[in-house]
Amino acid sequence: MVKTTTRTVNSVTLEALSIGAGILGTGGGGNPFLGKITTQRLFGAHGFVPVVSVDDLPADAVIIATGGMGSPTIGIERMGDGAESLRAVQALERYTGRKATHIAIGEIGGSNSIVPIRVAYQMGLPVVDADAMGRAFPELQMDTFTIYGIPPTPAALSDIRGHSVVFDEISVANDLERYARAVTIQMGGAAGYAFPTMSSDEMRRTSIPGTLSLAIRLGEAVLEARATHRDPIAASLGVMGGQRLFTGKIIDVDRRLVGGFARGALSMNGDGADSGRTLHIAFQNENLVARDEQGTVLCAVPDLICIVDTETGEPITTEVLRYGLRATVLGIPAPEMLRTPLALTYVGPTAFGYSDVEYVPMAGTYGEPD
Amino acid sequence: MVKTTTRTVNSVTLEALSIGAGILGTGGGGNPFLGKITTQRLFGAHGFVPVVSVDDLPADAVIIATGGMGSPTIGIERMGDGAESLRAVQALERYTGRKATHIAIGEIGGSNSIVPIRVAYQMGLPVVDADAMGRAFPELQMDTFTIYGIPPTPAALSDIRGHSVVFDEISVANDLERYARAVTIQMGGAAGYAFPTMSSDEMRRTSIPGTLSLAIRLGEAVLEARATHRDPIAASLGVMGGQRLFTGKIIDVDRRLVGGFARGALSMNGDGADSGRTLHIAFQNENLVARDEQGTVLCAVPDLICIVDTETGEPITTEVLRYGLRATVLGIPAPEMLRTPLALTYVGPTAFGYSDVEYVPMAGTYGEPD
Repeated sequence: MVKTTTRTVNSVTLEALSIGAGILGTGGGGNPFLGKITTQRLFGAHGFVPVVSVDDLPADAVIIATGGMGSPTIGIERMGDGAESLRAVQALERYTGRKATHIAIGEIGGSNSIVPIRVAYQMGLPVVDADAMGRAFPELQMDTFTIYGIPPTPAALSDIRGHSVVFDEISVANDLERYARAVTIQMGGAAGYAFPTMSSDEMRRTSIPGTLSLAIRLGEAVLEARATHRDPIAASLGVMGGQRLFTGKIIDVDRRLVGGFARGALSMNGDGADSGRTLHIAFQNENLVARDEQGTVLCAVPDLICIVDTETGEPITTEVLRYGLRATVLGIPAPEMLRTPLALTYVGPTAFGYSDVEYVPMAGTYGEPD
Repeated sequence: MVKTTTRTVNSVTLEALSIGAGILGTGGGGNPFLGKITTQRLFGAHGFVPVVSVDDLPADAVIIATGGMGSPTIGIERMGDGAESLRAVQALERYTGRKATHIAIGEIGGSNSIVPIRVAYQMGLPVVDADAMGRAFPELQMDTFTIYGIPPTPAALSDIRGHSVVFDEISVANDLERYARAVTIQMGGAAGYAFPTMSSDEMRRTSIPGTLSLAIRLGEAVLEARATHRDPIAASLGVMGGQRLFTGKIIDVDRRLVGGFARGALSMNGDGADSGRTLHIAFQNENLVARDEQGTVLCAVPDLICIVDTETGEPITTEVLRYGLRATVLGIPAPEMLRTPLALTYVGPTAFGYSDVEYVPMAGTYGEPD
């Protein structure tokens, strides 16, 4: 399969990105539909953002990663003004005195793939074709920038009212997560963040390359399958690798807003080949562990558990899960950078409190279908 | 009565200040004993800090107010390293690029009277003879800087590990309070703060002048009364004005740590002239409302409700209240700047949720005995 690399993001590419990023969001990362339409409106007919691969970053680049923080449950009820993350980047620039030359995506999953593109457009800067998760995760320290040693601060947070908060001298990213989460909750549950500031060497060393292009290719494959009456789910697996874990109907959703997160579990009854079977998925913003009716783990974080509409392949995010949806659950192997012993201490099952779940890497390679 | 103005604070003056500030703390503001001994150790035999009156501030002064944030319950159990507030001032200076020429006391009550003196000593700067409360209050926005229009941000917070957080573009001080409180709780319940940065005109216009000297005079009066076998409580009233509200024994203390505050109530049974009477005091770090057995309000915030040891006149702070203590409760009129209609919206009974309590100013003038 020939991999195309995206050179620009525009209103058309955004359509595909919102689907691909939604699938990679594994339920979280913010609702990509809202991010898409607000950014399409901003772009208008001719707007676009240049995309630069990590290999093409100039030696003196100053790269700032950005995104949104908060529960997706709040993200769809309390609209932002689209400038929270821009203000966070600007607050960070003011604090450090270092102006960004490139904007990075912290989290390719969900609307957090689109937020940095909007910020890049607002600042007239290119965006880097990479991210630090290859998916979505609920907490700030769960990214390859942190895992591979980029200091988490200085970091900035900003809200819809323009309030800004800058964190510094914090060496452990979990501490930043706790402080920033507490402030985000006080800001009403949604904020834009900006961190870290990186050199091109740091970005190359610690990011997962090509994930922006990959998310766009994934969305394009779904759109193309729909247009040509082929199976969009098979098309998704044809881009990402991985496998179909389960097909059926959602029969129960237990979702609560706890500590600024959408936490809970859902159950599905199987259809077709899965008739008579039941699937249970635990989530914290993102889907974390999928078990069958015997409690056997079928897929566990950091591998991706993606819930999509069985007919359309459209991603179903955590905040819109509901009884009766016909859905297919995909398991997609995590990027190798998330599967190292070091990375698993940040993003493996035990990092989420599942000390009883052993991480057995799913067969295959992220973004490399057989 | 001749009022003396303090020209320097040294280890000897600190002894008096810790008592005077403890009384003015009305239960809160942090335990002054700890602040005193750590600062005396820092001063050694010859250390001192120059004191400048608001009228003597140079026109180009840059004044930064500082103190500690958190519940006194935590302050006595989790010792700081004495540099949290210094780091907060330094973080604020780094952010604004404006170096302090003078340090201001945000809150004269409790150890927050001593923290700025320690910071001033560490930075080699003078401290201003004034504060923004004339007492202690539990929340950041409850001060005359805020009430009389000084913007609350930029503001900085720092903890014992050197973590720093800078808040900016926040125009409503209650929002700063919420954010800073949330971070302080995540920092373990105790942090140093620095805000606002003021000019000499702003400091003169919005501060309560002379309160550092007043607190020292109050402590000196208590010490002198003890040394000369006179009544230290009468000596306190002889400096502050106000009246004895109640004398008796603490018979019940209900104190909980809620949202980072020590909240609760205490009851006392009367002795001597107060035999057969009961007094109830509600507190949130500071003592807020004193009622008799019929529920009649005897004294309400912002007027000062000070609990002192009946024998020694030593202040009894909220975190050491316990059954059996023999105590006298003083009512002291609040500074006039806290009694204006505007100020009462920040520091009157309704600001603390006592919508059923009408504020009737106690007779007399703060710091002006009859």
